[in-house]
Amino acid sequence: MPRIRTNEVAAHLGERVRMAGWMHNFRDMSKFGFLLLRDGSGVVQAVLDSPAELEKLRGIQYESVVEVIGTVVAEPRSPAGVELHDCEVMVITPILEPLPFEVNKKELKPGLDVFLDHAPLGLRHLQKRALFRISAEMLLGFREYLNQQSFVEIQTPKIVGAATESGANVFSIDYFGRPAYLAQSPQFYKQIMVGVFERVYEVGPVFRAEKHNTVRHTNEYVSLDIEMGFIQDHTDVMDMLTGILRHVFERLKMSCAREVELLKLRVPTIGETIPSMRLGEAQQIIFERFGEDCRNEPDLSPQHEAWICEYAEKELGSEMLFVTHYPTSKRPFYAMPDDQDPTLTKSFDLEFRGCEIVTGGQRIHRYEQLRDSAHKWGIQDAQIEGYLQAFKYGMPPHGGFGMGLERLLMQLTGLSNLREATLFPRDLDRLSP
Amino acid sequence: MPRIRTNEVAAHLGERVRMAGWMHNFRDMSKFGFLLLRDGSGVVQAVLDSPAELEKLRGIQYESVVEVIGTVVAEPRSPAGVELHDCEVMVITPILEPLPFEVNKKELKPGLDVFLDHAPLGLRHLQKRALFRISAEMLLGFREYLNQQSFVEIQTPKIVGAATESGANVFSIDYFGRPAYLAQSPQFYKQIMVGVFERVYEVGPVFRAEKHNTVRHTNEYVSLDIEMGFIQDHTDVMDMLTGILRHVFERLKMSCAREVELLKLRVPTIGETIPSMRLGEAQQIIFERFGEDCRNEPDLSPQHEAWICEYAEKELGSEMLFVTHYPTSKRPFYAMPDDQDPTLTKSFDLEFRGCEIVTGGQRIHRYEQLRDSAHKWGIQDAQIEGYLQAFKYGMPPHGGFGMGLERLLMQLTGLSNLREATLFPRDLDRLSP
Repeated sequence: MPRIRTNEVAAHLGERVRMAGWMHNFRDMSKFGFLLLRDGSGVVQAVLDSPAELEKLRGIQYESVVEVIGTVVAEPRSPAGVELHDCEVMVITPILEPLPFEVNKKELKPGLDVFLDHAPLGLRHLQKRALFRISAEMLLGFREYLNQQSFVEIQTPKIVGAATESGANVFSIDYFGRPAYLAQSPQFYKQIMVGVFERVYEVGPVFRAEKHNTVRHTNEYVSLDIEMGFIQDHTDVMDMLTGILRHVFERLKMSCAREVELLKLRVPTIGETIPSMRLGEAQQIIFERFGEDCRNEPDLSPQHEAWICEYAEKELGSEMLFVTHYPTSKRPFYAMPDDQDPTLTKSFDLEFRGCEIVTGGQRIHRYEQLRDSAHKWGIQDAQIEGYLQAFKYGMPPHGGFGMGLERLLMQLTGLSNLREATLFPRDLDRLSP
Repeated sequence: MPRIRTNEVAAHLGERVRMAGWMHNFRDMSKFGFLLLRDGSGVVQAVLDSPAELEKLRGIQYESVVEVIGTVVAEPRSPAGVELHDCEVMVITPILEPLPFEVNKKELKPGLDVFLDHAPLGLRHLQKRALFRISAEMLLGFREYLNQQSFVEIQTPKIVGAATESGANVFSIDYFGRPAYLAQSPQFYKQIMVGVFERVYEVGPVFRAEKHNTVRHTNEYVSLDIEMGFIQDHTDVMDMLTGILRHVFERLKMSCAREVELLKLRVPTIGETIPSMRLGEAQQIIFERFGEDCRNEPDLSPQHEAWICEYAEKELGSEMLFVTHYPTSKRPFYAMPDDQDPTLTKSFDLEFRGCEIVTGGQRIHRYEQLRDSAHKWGIQDAQIEGYLQAFKYGMPPHGGFGMGLERLLMQLTGLSNLREATLFPRDLDRLSP
């Protein structure tokens, strides 16, 4: 008899089926017992009323792996809408020691550090695993939309001979006795690949050796990167991002309805456009409305981000806001200066519920301009030789963005620490599990 | 007028359209000229017959970025089935220096090293870029099939506190003054995640500090990993892999027909099953048929792989062959021993046209057995504490595989060096571009 999974069991009403999973819960009422069996897709209840079968489950702990053969009976009060009766059970992997904490309660008790130390167990909690199923579905939606838009997926190296954007915050490797670095972003490679495919995307790890622990930073994260050629300016990239997010969220509502419900998520509905304002305008609003004068600062602080998002939600009816035209001094050397005011760049950040989740913009595409800009930043040709090649041999106007997968998940699900949105986070203190 | 791409132009017969791309070729016949315009999706010919327009393209080199406005006219001899007449051109990015080699000829002349030094240019060659479009499509097919089979995509850390499988061939990082390593595979993490989702997959970079340069090794590659719970034995994993490859190849024939034709690929058709034999049987066949006695060796050499694939193609009618039951000594500590003969493992390699492209098998799922096996290999509990946790709290019988994306591409397309199947390869000598 082939094993079926929880999401298939309702289709087998009246049949005898074989199921297997983890002992999520077991209530032993002496003459009978209720086993909650959890598998990869859900939870189903098995009713045991034979002393011999009950005896098999006594003395083993939750999370033991068990198999159940039973008859599928309708039971609207049961999590799967059905339950199993007349059950025979078999213990596949018995667990004898008690668990360090319970993973079958609605609330997961341990604090973040204890949870992270026991992530292999803690991630089995239904709410926790729902988070990462949502993460996987968002990735599918991201790729699905970009494939429809003629983007080609690429994989570029994570070991690089020179630091991508600056020498700071980069991890060093011993590469057969030579120095090498972990890529801080696929920036140079994705731009090079615009020369090949016009439109490319990459999903992959990026590494930042930032020496401070904050709730919105880790040292390794998953970056969703796109780069597209033949644009007019950065607003074409913003439009593409708007389309991507609209698709990702609409898809989530359909394909992850159960997880959205379980986590009580508010998934945004994105209209024709996401509102947009210049950094200078945002700073003026913050000054006038919240009383803090940040008008001469080159960037928004976390508090400024919270304020401008509060404004956008109340006054513009949007949980998302583009902030554009960051100063040249705060953007990388390849950022395209604004035509009217070359101290500003054709760049943007996307703010979502008080936190920046995307950074992007138009890039310089002319060889001479790019070299000049690099030189101004103290970067020599030899350091970026391969990158410059693409420009030497003809690049169109182009731009793109990088979006942190964990940041997006954190803001969507209302988590307060990026580590909760990361399967196995890496920070100053944490290299395992 | 919005820009259209080559794959859309045939739908605009008789209309005036705007196109943009790279100057792939330009034949200047003095009174008129033929411009081949290459964009991300193909090549289209523009016929220029105005002296003023012709003059704009004189003196600039191939790979200059140009825009063309013209009228779409049917022309069956032209690559896109149509061409543009009455053209106005505009040079967006002029290239003034000649290219180091031609990228618009059928054969790409430079040798591998020159090519790799100039990859940003060389990858624009139509055959070269077709390779990596095929690579992207194979990834899509891989994920598509696994999503249908209820697998969940995961992203696991590439910076790890302890070497995954052995201390050898691992890159070291300076992690804020502490030692850390680059993950050689997502093995431990994907197994841990079987405890959460039952079925998981990951596509990501892996790093091997192998100190030898061969045509079938690089130091960073893309690994396609799956791990699945509730299996009977390794043959369930082999069946899943068979289904994946069948889907990937069938999808490729449909969605990449143009690239398959351009590269003259023979894409295998995979039937119900891929033939399978034990390592011992393969060695016996090699002995009897090719005269080399490798019957006491724990693995197949590249020559043995070539021979056994030659045999499989001739005698079993298959370009693919599973070789199973590798000795315990040659497999990692977590490999499940065979029930009948514990000196062998429930493991497999998949051979494809003379080269191993996949390694997989069933894993040990009982905590005590896994610890005992680790101890035999000299691995202490503390080194694999997080990994062991998953087993302490209940794991089902499970298994999986790792497949090298570049190896698969190399064998499918008949390349002779793995570096040709890698966008920006990393080896002993090469850290850039």
